[in-house]
Amino acid sequence: MEDQSRRKFLQNAGLATLASVSPLAAEPEKVKELFIHHVYFYLKNKNNAQDEAKLLEGLHKLAKVPTIEYVHIGTPAATSRDVIVKDYTFSWMCFFKNIIEEEIYQTHPIHLDFIQEYSHLWEKVVVYDSIGPKKVS
Amino acid sequence: MEDQSRRKFLQNAGLATLASVSPLAAEPEKVKELFIHHVYFYLKNKNNAQDEAKLLEGLHKLAKVPTIEYVHIGTPAATSRDVIVKDYTFSWMCFFKNIIEEEIYQTHPIHLDFIQEYSHLWEKVVVYDSIGPKKVS
Repeated sequence: MEDQSRRKFLQNAGLATLASVSPLAAEPEKVKELFIHHVYFYLKNKNNAQDEAKLLEGLHKLAKVPTIEYVHIGTPAATSRDVIVKDYTFSWMCFFKNIIEEEIYQTHPIHLDFIQEYSHLWEKVVVYDSIGPKKVS
Repeated sequence: MEDQSRRKFLQNAGLATLASVSPLAAEPEKVKELFIHHVYFYLKNKNNAQDEAKLLEGLHKLAKVPTIEYVHIGTPAATSRDVIVKDYTFSWMCFFKNIIEEEIYQTHPIHLDFIQEYSHLWEKVVVYDSIGPKKVS
């Protein structure tokens, strides 16, 4: 299957899956909302340069999942106020066109390979998934 | 002062402040990194529609701060796995060109007015500030 039609196929498969399992099937407008998937990775061996480099390598591979619309890999900034959480190693922030595209990402072979190959490096992940209009009007 | 030169002035003021207080003065390359400011708001009166609408109104005003490059206002998505945090009311995710632009945002009159007028609505905020290259290469 060429890339374009494969993508279309996966999207339709996603829609079919969603229709059968998700309350979103009854809320089509939600499918139009931008989906932000923000993950904070906590390494088992905190401040171990080798493990950091390894996980960073994995995140760069993960960035190739085709349904990711935008991705930013970050580290804690130099800001410091009481309310700021700074104890994670990497921030992984992805935009998806909608929740369906994120479902495809979750089960994409690149994502599954990433978990298999790199999950031994982290102690925990903290994930925030949020949706809202793409543009604040 | 017209908008353009006022902005330039504020940026320079930001740089001056940064040079005097921040370790970043010695790391100019960090100033080129995209700054992601992600805030999760927890309302005092959780699930109170009136308070939600009020805070949302405030966030729309806050979105006018001129150094914000992109902003997304979200609510928890329908996804549910153990690692997903879902107990906040609003996600507020901003891009800034760099840490200096975020410093300007923190002390901008629109931001200060927002805190004064709306902070009674929330019980807590959880903030993650992260920096990294704009594009994953």
